Amino acid sequence: MSWIHAEDLPDIAFGAAVLGTGGGGDPHIGQLMAAASIRRSGPVELIRLDDLNDDDLVVPVGMMGAPTVMLEKLPSGQEALLALRTLETHLGKRVKALLSVEAGGLNSTIPIGVASELGLPLVDADGMGRAFPELQMVVMTLHGIKATPMGMADEKGNAALIETIDNRWTERLARTMTIEMGGSSLTALYPMTGKQAKVATIPGTITLLAKIGRAAREARQAHGDPVEAVRAITGGFYLFKGKVRDVSRRTVGGFARGTAIIEGLDSCSGQQCHLDFQNENLIATRDGEVLASVPDLITALDAESGEPITTETLRYGMRVVVLGMPCDAQWRSAAGLKLVGPQYFGYDVPFVPVESRFPAQSVGIELAGVS
Amino acid sequence: MSWIHAEDLPDIAFGAAVLGTGGGGDPHIGQLMAAASIRRSGPVELIRLDDLNDDDLVVPVGMMGAPTVMLEKLPSGQEALLALRTLETHLGKRVKALLSVEAGGLNSTIPIGVASELGLPLVDADGMGRAFPELQMVVMTLHGIKATPMGMADEKGNAALIETIDNRWTERLARTMTIEMGGSSLTALYPMTGKQAKVATIPGTITLLAKIGRAAREARQAHGDPVEAVRAITGGFYLFKGKVRDVSRRTVGGFARGTAIIEGLDSCSGQQCHLDFQNENLIATRDGEVLASVPDLITALDAESGEPITTETLRYGMRVVVLGMPCDAQWRSAAGLKLVGPQYFGYDVPFVPVESRFPAQSVGIELAGVS
Repeated sequence: MSWIHAEDLPDIAFGAAVLGTGGGGDPHIGQLMAAASIRRSGPVELIRLDDLNDDDLVVPVGMMGAPTVMLEKLPSGQEALLALRTLETHLGKRVKALLSVEAGGLNSTIPIGVASELGLPLVDADGMGRAFPELQMVVMTLHGIKATPMGMADEKGNAALIETIDNRWTERLARTMTIEMGGSSLTALYPMTGKQAKVATIPGTITLLAKIGRAAREARQAHGDPVEAVRAITGGFYLFKGKVRDVSRRTVGGFARGTAIIEGLDSCSGQQCHLDFQNENLIATRDGEVLASVPDLITALDAESGEPITTETLRYGMRVVVLGMPCDAQWRSAAGLKLVGPQYFGYDVPFVPVESRFPAQSVGIELAGVS
Repeated sequence: MSWIHAEDLPDIAFGAAVLGTGGGGDPHIGQLMAAASIRRSGPVELIRLDDLNDDDLVVPVGMMGAPTVMLEKLPSGQEALLALRTLETHLGKRVKALLSVEAGGLNSTIPIGVASELGLPLVDADGMGRAFPELQMVVMTLHGIKATPMGMADEKGNAALIETIDNRWTERLARTMTIEMGGSSLTALYPMTGKQAKVATIPGTITLLAKIGRAAREARQAHGDPVEAVRAITGGFYLFKGKVRDVSRRTVGGFARGTAIIEGLDSCSGQQCHLDFQNENLIATRDGEVLASVPDLITALDAESGEPITTETLRYGMRVVVLGMPCDAQWRSAAGLKLVGPQYFGYDVPFVPVESRFPAQSVGIELAGVS
């Protein structure tokens, strides 16, 4: 796939929602926006990191804010262009290629739409290999790349450029600006050279998203098991199967925070799973025992269709399978864990790779709960 | 005075605090900062609006935030340079001359310090002819000049550039950013051409400030009445004389809001004056009757020394004379009153020019209270 067409978007959006671990916004909205752009402005060239010149300006674009707000405030499509133009004006240089800041429902497809509108190529890579709630949580941070100068814009036409002393201050100032802009904003940040992008991003993400989506689709079409198809292609593990009993959810400080309680079904019968989230799923526990935690990926899928479920659409009565998937190795370094490990999010537990917790697990929901 | 030297600063700071109507920050701090800059980088050329070329880039610089915070967070002096550089980068043009955004303790002297550091001239003009609490409250707004692009910076080294759809949005986004930056920020905004500045500012402000300060100083030196000297040179009126009985003050939404209650002395004995403020004094009432209101100027002076008292230093037991002074005619237009009249600040009273309320008053505190 060297060009992204509108018909590729459902698979990409599906894969993005899987790696989005409940966050990153509604994949359906992202897909509609990108499809509209492609119909208007044509398909998007997908290039590899190796295709970049060392001095090309490469910029990730994405949405910032609580997904709960994004559901009610559809982006106009012009915000990202405005955010990007604001950044370009500051840098005095034109962007050569775009990138996804994260793999997530909206943030994997928004750059596709923007790339189409601007006739720019999209790099087959992203900054997280999953979704995370705060903007300093990208592998670029591990490589010392600053989030700023950062452009941002809202759907009304307001724009801002911020330049901060470190990425934590970027998160703080951009978050407060996002809240004032109405709870969500479009951002262009972590401007990089092609040389930097080659080492400081996670390669192959868009291709992987498309593969995940295709595997699930083909399983559904063959009346197979789409959940198992997703698990297999992501190298994941079954953490839990059950029915959502309760979801507490609140929008705090620009984030959707909460906990879902899932009552076990089948082999998990009689057990209870707690899934805590801050936009993204952070930690899954079963009867108080940790099943998986950040930075590994935790995603709830519809038990029948295999559709990934975002934290803002999780609700009472849904039958779900919770998958745990290994994160990119960069996140498991000491610096990576300091940035996005369970302690950062306030959980006083050590990080244990999901594959170490489930060494014997092969396939099939009947093994869920074995550790 | 075509050059501002360090020894001119006390008079200017005094005058700025008088026209600052209680807001605009501590005049002493502003004076110290500007004096340090002038000692380091030399005196500042004071030019007239007529000296500007029509295509010169002219930019007001100033501090934004609650004066209560500014008292505890001394600016480093580098913030204004950073705010200005951020704006220049966006515009792709160098600033030719600086301006005060308002007449106020800090905001009249900060541009002097910045002008000294950068070797730029300061224009003898300002945007308000007094101080007001919100950034859209400048005569530039009446002339359709946008506040943005606007540069801002904090003392830690964080910077931002905002570009908004209108000046109300600038106030909103810049205020929220200022709060997150720690309650105060340095800003460079309302970039204008020389041609625009000639019609869209209030001329002669710096010269007037120096005159007010000199008049009070000379009265003190001659053992005369500095309060009367200030009243006479500003064309003002005695509103009240009394002793501060109570001040309620809170920092809300980035503003210092509150009310001072003053018990009458001498000819005002037995009466009570309420002085409401939002950074600046907004309205003075005597036993429920309006004495003066925005956009006219209301300033409390120490009854003996004539020193203007900022709203954040007003406290129990101070003996004060409250002066009312006519504002610039531009503020009394329908558009001006819509922007800064009593209704905007939530007072359901019509604006009545202070000179209409006190037609018979000539001089002397014994007339205070006569209306």
